[in-house]
Amino acid sequence: MAKGLPKRSEDFSGWYNELVGMADLAENSGVRGCMVIKPYGFAIWEKMQDQLDRMFKETGHQNAYFPLFVPKSLFEAEEKNAEGFAKECAVVTHYRLKTDPEDASKLIVDPNAKLEEELIVRPTSEAIIWNTYKGWIQSYRDLPILINQWANVVRWEMRTRLFLRTAEFLWQEGHTAHATKQEALDETAQMLDVYAAFAENFMAMPVVKGYKTENERFAGADDTYCIEALMQDGKALQAGTSHFLGQNFAKAFDVKFADKDGKQDYVWATSWGVSTRLMGALIMSHSDDYGLVLPPKLAPIQVAIVPIYKGEDQLAQVSEVANEIKDALIAKGLSVKYDDDDKRKPGWKFAEYEVKGVPVRIAIGARDLENGTVEVARRDTMSKETMPREEVVDHVAGLMDEIQCSLLVRNQQFVKENTHEVETWEEFVDVIENKGGFVSAHWDGTGETEQQIKEATKATIRCIPFDAQEVEGKCIFTGNPSKRKVLFAKAY
Amino acid sequence: MAKGLPKRSEDFSGWYNELVGMADLAENSGVRGCMVIKPYGFAIWEKMQDQLDRMFKETGHQNAYFPLFVPKSLFEAEEKNAEGFAKECAVVTHYRLKTDPEDASKLIVDPNAKLEEELIVRPTSEAIIWNTYKGWIQSYRDLPILINQWANVVRWEMRTRLFLRTAEFLWQEGHTAHATKQEALDETAQMLDVYAAFAENFMAMPVVKGYKTENERFAGADDTYCIEALMQDGKALQAGTSHFLGQNFAKAFDVKFADKDGKQDYVWATSWGVSTRLMGALIMSHSDDYGLVLPPKLAPIQVAIVPIYKGEDQLAQVSEVANEIKDALIAKGLSVKYDDDDKRKPGWKFAEYEVKGVPVRIAIGARDLENGTVEVARRDTMSKETMPREEVVDHVAGLMDEIQCSLLVRNQQFVKENTHEVETWEEFVDVIENKGGFVSAHWDGTGETEQQIKEATKATIRCIPFDAQEVEGKCIFTGNPSKRKVLFAKAY
Ligand SMILES: [Zn+2]
Ligand SMILES: [Zn+2]
Repeated sequence: MAKGLPKRSEDFSGWYNELVGMADLAENSGVRGCMVIKPYGFAIWEKMQDQLDRMFKETGHQNAYFPLFVPKSLFEAEEKNAEGFAKECAVVTHYRLKTDPEDASKLIVDPNAKLEEELIVRPTSEAIIWNTYKGWIQSYRDLPILINQWANVVRWEMRTRLFLRTAEFLWQEGHTAHATKQEALDETAQMLDVYAAFAENFMAMPVVKGYKTENERFAGADDTYCIEALMQDGKALQAGTSHFLGQNFAKAFDVKFADKDGKQDYVWATSWGVSTRLMGALIMSHSDDYGLVLPPKLAPIQVAIVPIYKGEDQLAQVSEVANEIKDALIAKGLSVKYDDDDKRKPGWKFAEYEVKGVPVRIAIGARDLENGTVEVARRDTMSKETMPREEVVDHVAGLMDEIQCSLLVRNQQFVKENTHEVETWEEFVDVIENKGGFVSAHWDGTGETEQQIKEATKATIRCIPFDAQEVEGKCIFTGNPSKRKVLFAKAY
Repeated sequence: MAKGLPKRSEDFSGWYNELVGMADLAENSGVRGCMVIKPYGFAIWEKMQDQLDRMFKETGHQNAYFPLFVPKSLFEAEEKNAEGFAKECAVVTHYRLKTDPEDASKLIVDPNAKLEEELIVRPTSEAIIWNTYKGWIQSYRDLPILINQWANVVRWEMRTRLFLRTAEFLWQEGHTAHATKQEALDETAQMLDVYAAFAENFMAMPVVKGYKTENERFAGADDTYCIEALMQDGKALQAGTSHFLGQNFAKAFDVKFADKDGKQDYVWATSWGVSTRLMGALIMSHSDDYGLVLPPKLAPIQVAIVPIYKGEDQLAQVSEVANEIKDALIAKGLSVKYDDDDKRKPGWKFAEYEVKGVPVRIAIGARDLENGTVEVARRDTMSKETMPREEVVDHVAGLMDEIQCSLLVRNQQFVKENTHEVETWEEFVDVIENKGGFVSAHWDGTGETEQQIKEATKATIRCIPFDAQEVEGKCIFTGNPSKRKVLFAKAY
């Protein structure tokens, strides 16, 4: 167990908070609810961004940038969207400071610099973007518009937690415009598939794809698709959403297009996003009581090489071997750090790379030099083996796929074991309270029932899975008829 | 000349504004002073970012992310810095909206959601970052810290212009912490060299490196180094700055470290940045009356292939050849677009790729098929040549370096021709008013003289060039003794 890190089984929440700090991922800042993403944490986020950006471009999207601020009159144009975000908006009201007349070393807001119209710091960009699209769209020739933006957004959350819920966070938001409803629906589904593929193939995190209930939909959407993941403590985490916005924003901003026959119609829209919240999901999916565990595809350092030596001569000998191995691994496309820092002991380095989740550690000591061996340690299994030096490069390169795959399989198994089918209210309450995990149960389809179940158990409907089978049944809460089971869980 | 585009010689400023729109680079938004960076413009910015990011990492820097907001009490801690930016700050004062009691479809700022302490939207991040570094630095072992951030910043400018001066802009800001003054000075110089290398080798834009005068320094810096470029209208543009911050921020935020002997000292700092302003510099460096001209290394599309055909059969034949050439060019690492869009005529496409600055256009028609030829047009020289099909791939690949180099040489020649040595006030005024360009002249070293020259001519001291020779002379304005010439110009 890593020093100072609570055990997951005893204090999952404390474990998470400590781990985020110990692994140098992020910390709270001097600004309420806002985080500092530290270099090591940011390097992981950059790997996520790179891959997602590639996937967006492969599906025909381009990046652009829209303003941070949304004038209040634009913000309120789509009423449901505005209502949904109004209670958590940071508002800019002034554009100048001046010296405090009572204390020349202080500044005060200049009352003469009040804005005529307040500016909302974007909590999401539909309003400013659809106000812009209005100028870009006249005819079907201008469609589709397939744009993504990487940006910071602000939602004034009262209870915040690093990565999971912060007042400012980083995300990408896709905003597309289409000539037909079907095209927009296809786009909504496509982008959810992109998110699911990213979660499984890069984060090694299995997800359930489904529809949100009306209560849980994005404000202003006709339908919200989501991917839901299961954390090690049995709580669910919404990892990405893709919204079919219908013609709501086109109507709010009067965006029409002429089709091939010159007929005017409102434009169809989607939006979709994932955020630095994925960092929280990644951490809580794989990490253990020794610290962070990273899938190799998202690890900033995939292999750390640590020399064990006494004196400069031995270090020089070890370094020769270490650098050879390092260069050979880099030539195979791996990212490798050879840590010959003389200020730190090997034990300190072992603990450091463990807590930071480096997938593979290679140690080379004086005895290894004699025997022509090295020691290879896997972070995911904490297993070690000593092997001939000439085998290490191929072996470690192969471990990248092996670890990536094994983390996914392990988590798939975990989700399977922690998804419970229940038929009665008693079972439901028992599982939610005592086991956690996903609970598949019949529901009568009303928002009232959903709300009452939430109040009674804190469990929410995570989604109506795309692959839910049509099965007649009775709602666990009201006994009213139900056509399919939905997925409940307590959630982040 | 491109339709609707003013001539540079007649209306440079109108030409710039039109061009930014016609080339689909950016546009004004519904938010005063804020721009929308359109996909084509953003793709160029992404190329700049990629390359700069690579250069920052090669020089040992890591990326991180710090909060958008700076609490007022932190903002005012470094007094000079605070004073310098106080007059252009967007200020968040409230964190919630509510329904307007007089009109349920409107929102108003909720007076009960006033922040206890106002938040400044970062105009630059020294304050929030040094408040964070305080927690990271105890001993010399924690130094240096070499961090960069890609972010949006807000400076409430009254007169704005796309890319050149906008209320919100995108930039990178490096913030480093060092144990010694010399190390911080070396870092300041190193990063200016990185900027200069980027400007010359990627933007094909020659720059002068130098020191800013005290009047023109970054607020809170002990010294500001800059790179200055010369635009086609003879006005200078500050393209990047690197600041030696001394111990000013360490003192303001009480950031000390223990050296090897346990002695406490304040930490030394630098910061350095370039912004989307570079887009403006790029545009005004190379473009012409036909539209944008892009150096190949920053062009999102390096080669556009346009088919000229009648009917589907001819298109199919041309496409076979075009796709072969396209694939061969992509295999050589070029980014190529084959534009077989049937909704647009070849003439329209020619104009489109011209106005968008695509470095090379290949046209293939029916006669080319017969003759085994293609037509290759260079955007920088607007020259065309017809060549055997089997030569085109090597030729066009070679053109990338040739065009990149030729743009740089052309601009070096331009800077040389437009840098004037003057000895008297009359000469100075004449050159500034009638010729423009850089004016190298003696100056007595005082802020007062600098200010009076500015008021009389609008020319400012762009920099004291690093390579300025020690030559005794007399200030053009006061006649007082001067030890070296400095570089004046009217500037953006
Ligand atoms: Zn093995
Ligand atoms: Zn040629």
